[in-house]
Amino acid sequence: MRTADLPVADLLAALRSAVGPAGLVTDPDQLAGHLTDWRGAWSGQAAAVVRPGSTAEVAAVVALCRDAGVGLVPQGGNTGLCGGAVPDSSGRQVVLSLSRMRAVRELDAANQTITVEAGAVLQSVQEAAAAAGRLFPLSLGAEGSATIGGNLATNAGGTAVLRYGTMRDLTLGLEVVLPDGRIWHGLRGLRKDNTGYDLKHLFVGAEGTLGVITAAVLKLFPAVRSRATAWVALPGPAAAVALIEVVRALAGDRLTGFEVMSRQSVEFVLRHAADVRDPFPAPHPWYALVELSDTLPAAGLDTVVETALAEAFDRDLPRDAVIAAGPAQGAALWRLREGISAAQNGEGPSLKHDITVPVSAIPAFVERTDRALAEALPGIRVVAYGHVGDGNLHYNLSKPVGSDDDEFAARAAELARVVHDGTAALAGSISAEHGVGQAKRDVLADYKDPLELDLMRGVKAMLDPTGLMNPGKVLPPG
Amino acid sequence: MRTADLPVADLLAALRSAVGPAGLVTDPDQLAGHLTDWRGAWSGQAAAVVRPGSTAEVAAVVALCRDAGVGLVPQGGNTGLCGGAVPDSSGRQVVLSLSRMRAVRELDAANQTITVEAGAVLQSVQEAAAAAGRLFPLSLGAEGSATIGGNLATNAGGTAVLRYGTMRDLTLGLEVVLPDGRIWHGLRGLRKDNTGYDLKHLFVGAEGTLGVITAAVLKLFPAVRSRATAWVALPGPAAAVALIEVVRALAGDRLTGFEVMSRQSVEFVLRHAADVRDPFPAPHPWYALVELSDTLPAAGLDTVVETALAEAFDRDLPRDAVIAAGPAQGAALWRLREGISAAQNGEGPSLKHDITVPVSAIPAFVERTDRALAEALPGIRVVAYGHVGDGNLHYNLSKPVGSDDDEFAARAAELARVVHDGTAALAGSISAEHGVGQAKRDVLADYKDPLELDLMRGVKAMLDPTGLMNPGKVLPPG
Repeated sequence: MRTADLPVADLLAALRSAVGPAGLVTDPDQLAGHLTDWRGAWSGQAAAVVRPGSTAEVAAVVALCRDAGVGLVPQGGNTGLCGGAVPDSSGRQVVLSLSRMRAVRELDAANQTITVEAGAVLQSVQEAAAAAGRLFPLSLGAEGSATIGGNLATNAGGTAVLRYGTMRDLTLGLEVVLPDGRIWHGLRGLRKDNTGYDLKHLFVGAEGTLGVITAAVLKLFPAVRSRATAWVALPGPAAAVALIEVVRALAGDRLTGFEVMSRQSVEFVLRHAADVRDPFPAPHPWYALVELSDTLPAAGLDTVVETALAEAFDRDLPRDAVIAAGPAQGAALWRLREGISAAQNGEGPSLKHDITVPVSAIPAFVERTDRALAEALPGIRVVAYGHVGDGNLHYNLSKPVGSDDDEFAARAAELARVVHDGTAALAGSISAEHGVGQAKRDVLADYKDPLELDLMRGVKAMLDPTGLMNPGKVLPPG
Repeated sequence: MRTADLPVADLLAALRSAVGPAGLVTDPDQLAGHLTDWRGAWSGQAAAVVRPGSTAEVAAVVALCRDAGVGLVPQGGNTGLCGGAVPDSSGRQVVLSLSRMRAVRELDAANQTITVEAGAVLQSVQEAAAAAGRLFPLSLGAEGSATIGGNLATNAGGTAVLRYGTMRDLTLGLEVVLPDGRIWHGLRGLRKDNTGYDLKHLFVGAEGTLGVITAAVLKLFPAVRSRATAWVALPGPAAAVALIEVVRALAGDRLTGFEVMSRQSVEFVLRHAADVRDPFPAPHPWYALVELSDTLPAAGLDTVVETALAEAFDRDLPRDAVIAAGPAQGAALWRLREGISAAQNGEGPSLKHDITVPVSAIPAFVERTDRALAEALPGIRVVAYGHVGDGNLHYNLSKPVGSDDDEFAARAAELARVVHDGTAALAGSISAEHGVGQAKRDVLADYKDPLELDLMRGVKAMLDPTGLMNPGKVLPPG
């Protein structure tokens, strides 16, 4: 890491001249929104926020900061959950906001691709695809403010990964400003290209530590024209794993969502959310939300769900089940799932974990981790929910009823270790879809193969030898 | 590149002691099959073929060769088309055959994954999946001898990429022996893992130049239980691009194959192959082979095809169409497609090209390239066929009728340039699914962004600083 060669005032003047007055923000009030993440979990300081209007301007900004030895923090919608887009506390870093670069550069319907700039908001890309009779399938809670650049930098997931994959899988080409200021014009819209190393995969999921993604070619899919949604009561996660097998064997690619949640999760939603009700008269230990979709307008999906559920009942998997009679009922079922994160806030501080294990290991993971947490803190309330098909659980924790908020929050690291040790014991990952950022940077050293950390550091040193791209993120010190 | 520090005899003795007598081949007769590719297009010499029986033995072999400064050429089923697994002519390189490492290490049905060693033959992996009621969808002509390691090293494609992706997309985890002899234990069966740079993508498609893949965790899918196949006569490639849109909008993921071929291609099959017949009474300029499949046993696929074709006829796209009445008729239609490569051999030397362009650019590519080739060599016969959904055409050339074989073969480089220039002009790739190997190594420098070549060389230098992994492959000298 170099220290600044130029006084900050000189750098800011040079940046202003590169991006124009509208592109440089130094007013403290305007800076504020860029220095703290949306949850208020991470805060920092910055010398400025730079908002370039073009890829060439991004390249100029990167080159100026490199010459000045000043760290750059790329930022999208600032909706990340791990502090990856928040600067450090030094006040010397510069935040690089892509918010002025939000164009849809091209939509090629026959090639089923859309080329968008990094600052485009996810929802606007979904809408552009829909207007062309296509589907851009990435879907997540923050889609109204999260940007494509942030989705790429964190390899975003969400509820449709089961069928369509993560952001990485949806990406065909990238345009990237490298740490040395050169522009890689890799905006290829090709589904096959075996001409050497596939470099785009270095930048997807790198959280801005290897360069600045400025645009991408993304895959589109045919529009969905029918949908069926079911809510199934289950005795536990083993039944959920068995149920997804039954449904998938029949429904194949029609299965586009398979979410599970514990009774605890649903209880919080019923307690704190508006416009929700328990679909069943009695409580059950776990639930699955099953969604099928199809390109055919009259695809007979209800029959497919009914057939799958009949087979599941034959095998004694569900305790109860209901199929939504239409879109309104389907949306009501989704509210039970989507309300969990907000509802948990009504119960004091939430300790959030985002893990994956092999799908087959979910039951063992839940059983062992529930037990270990109860031993560590009797009365702890586990809010477990997630995407069974991906092996991805959001394994969040609420304090025991009546206990002290601060005492609970103070045990965050200890309790996270219980969850992460449980993950590691089953060959899982401590970050499924949220990334590393600052939040998991240091613990990564405890869970990642040292050889893999070596290779990651080698890649970092090759692309960013001065270490000025998003310093302090992802890579543990070492 | 280092020169040998040890005499070859010492190295061979050390290798024999590392892999046992059965693991070292130096007998010229036994060597021969490893020194020439299956087509006889590429030949080399080698000091020995080493056949390790375990990952630890591979690591020992890599370390010994590194210490001796001897280049290693990883080899699978030797079915590659670009000479990537054939040693150079020096006789100093060592071929590393994975043929003794062919175990299925694990099949996790609930996780929909199979863990296999690199030497496993593709067909045996398909069969292991089928025995568990699952589908491993990679499918290509050489599947009876091509190995998983070769499929990974070349990021193999084939006829099902449209629905299931390339080998890269089917891979969740890897075990790799690095050029320094260390073993990366990356055999994770996770569908989401955002804990840093996704290193597996460096090794997939690297053709053995960055390390030796010894095992992989691959995705499985639900078994297919119904299928429909149609053969459609078309006026040209523009109609094929329009037709795939019509079919895909209705059929969605049911569309698992969409192959096209020019009349010239089909004519060669009708002339040279056994057990084939033209489905239509009159010739047509182009044809599409459309295949739908489904996990449901009675999925009504014929109705979906009929509906799609009715809409296509309304839009005046097909000239004629037939839907296979059952699996036997479906297989007969596939013979017309799959016979092309062999049939072309009956017409003298074939100059083969494997290109992609954006799907929307296929019609312009065919029109311009056909014309440029006819200008370069009047009477040249273009055998164009491929996978429309991937933008991938095998754009092969046969000599003008009655002309001289050698004169035609002597113009290979010049004619390849016409095809590749046409590809580049439409933002395409000069290697869609066959890789680079030796065949396209030098021309790569003419078509690849120099910045991208720089980055590739940076990756190579980082992982293989002594340049002993598959020397002379993929990376152009520079």
